[in-house]
Amino acid sequence: MKLFSFWRSLATFRVRIALNLKGITPDEIVEINLLKGDQRGDSFRKVNPMMAIPSLVEDDGTVLFESLAILEYLDEAHPHPPLLPKEPKARARARALAQIVACDTHPLTVPRVREYLAREYKVDDAGVIKWGNHWLSEALAGLETHLQSPETGRYCQGDQVTVADICLASQSVGAFYFKCDLAPYPTVKRIVDELFTIDAFARAHPLKQPGAPAGV
Amino acid sequence: MKLFSFWRSLATFRVRIALNLKGITPDEIVEINLLKGDQRGDSFRKVNPMMAIPSLVEDDGTVLFESLAILEYLDEAHPHPPLLPKEPKARARARALAQIVACDTHPLTVPRVREYLAREYKVDDAGVIKWGNHWLSEALAGLETHLQSPETGRYCQGDQVTVADICLASQSVGAFYFKCDLAPYPTVKRIVDELFTIDAFARAHPLKQPGAPAGV
Repeated sequence: MKLFSFWRSLATFRVRIALNLKGITPDEIVEINLLKGDQRGDSFRKVNPMMAIPSLVEDDGTVLFESLAILEYLDEAHPHPPLLPKEPKARARARALAQIVACDTHPLTVPRVREYLAREYKVDDAGVIKWGNHWLSEALAGLETHLQSPETGRYCQGDQVTVADICLASQSVGAFYFKCDLAPYPTVKRIVDELFTIDAFARAHPLKQPGAPAGV
Repeated sequence: MKLFSFWRSLATFRVRIALNLKGITPDEIVEINLLKGDQRGDSFRKVNPMMAIPSLVEDDGTVLFESLAILEYLDEAHPHPPLLPKEPKARARARALAQIVACDTHPLTVPRVREYLAREYKVDDAGVIKWGNHWLSEALAGLETHLQSPETGRYCQGDQVTVADICLASQSVGAFYFKCDLAPYPTVKRIVDELFTIDAFARAHPLKQPGAPAGV
C-alpha cells in the first residue's frame, strides 16, 4: 500500500488517522508538495486527474481517492475497530458531521482555491486567512450546535470514535492554520482535546509529519 | 417523512433522485427559498444549524442532513435498488466520483459563497458565473479522465446506477447554471444523457420543481 501525502494536507491527515486506528502502515509514503504544485505534475495527474491528495494505492494497483471514500473503504476492508456506528440513523449523523467538515468547509480552503483568490481577486495573505477563518468559523458554529445534541457522547456520535471525529480533528488543525480560536465552541474543543490524547490521532498530526515546519 | 427542499438546490436534487429510485414519496415538502435567505430563518436553523438543505426528517423526528449522508442512509434503510456496488473497491470508486462533485465542486458554488464573493470582493453576476464555471470545468475535466477507466460502464461505475451517477446528474445541472458546456467531456455527457432517460432522474430535475422559472 502506497500513500500520496503532504504534511499540510488535512484530507491526508484524516486518512493517516484511520490507518493508525486500523493498525495499517503503508509500505511507502510519496510526498506531493502542494505548496510547490507537485499535484499538477504529469506523474501525479496519472494517479489522480483531480490533482488532489490523498491517494491510496492498493497492492493490486487500485487507486483510491477522496478522503471520505478512502475512510469508508478502509472501514469495509478492515472492519476492526469500526469507524461508523451500527445503527443507520447514528451512521447518518456521524457521516453528516464528517461532511460538514469535508464537504462544506475544507474544499473552500484548499491550495487551488487560495491560489485562485490571489490571482483573480488580488486577495493578499491576510485576506486569504480572513477567507478561511470565515468558513471555518461558520462551520464550527454549526458543528457546535449540532454537537449539543444528546446523541453526542465522549465523541461526536456516542462513545465510539467515528469518521465524524476524524474530520473534527482535521477541522481543528484547519482552525489553527487560519487563526480561528476554538474557545467559542466548547463542545468541539472538548472533543478535539479528547481526540488528541489518542495516539492514532496525535501521531498523525500534520505538524508531526516529515517536511512540516518546526517550532510552530 | 418531510423533505426541506428548494427547486434550485443541487444537493436536494440528489436526494429527490434517490427517493424516486427507492420509490419513496415524502409526506411533505417544505420550501426553503435559498434566494430569499429562508435557510437563515430561526425555524429552519432549528432543523439544521448549518443553514443548508436538504434536510430529511423521519417520522420519529430524526433529522438527516448532508446529501451524501442522506443517500447512504436511504440505501441502508431501503436497500432496493442499491445505490452502491457490492465490492469494496467498486464502492470506493463510486463514492469518490460522487465526492468530486459533492465535496470538491458544489460547495464552492452555493449561495453563501456567491454572496460572500459579491459582498467582500465586489464580484458581479458575470464574475460569479466565471467563478462557478471555473470550478465546474476543472471538476468535469477530472471526472472525464476518471471516467475513461474500464471500470466505467453504461453508468459511472459499471452498469448499475450509483451515488456517482446521482452526483453526476447534479453536476450537469450546475454546469447549466454556470454556462459550462458539457461537449468537451464526452463520457460525462454520454452518461448524463443516459441518466435523464430514467424517470427517477428526469422528474427530479430542478427545473421541474414548484417555483422553478418557466421557459429556461
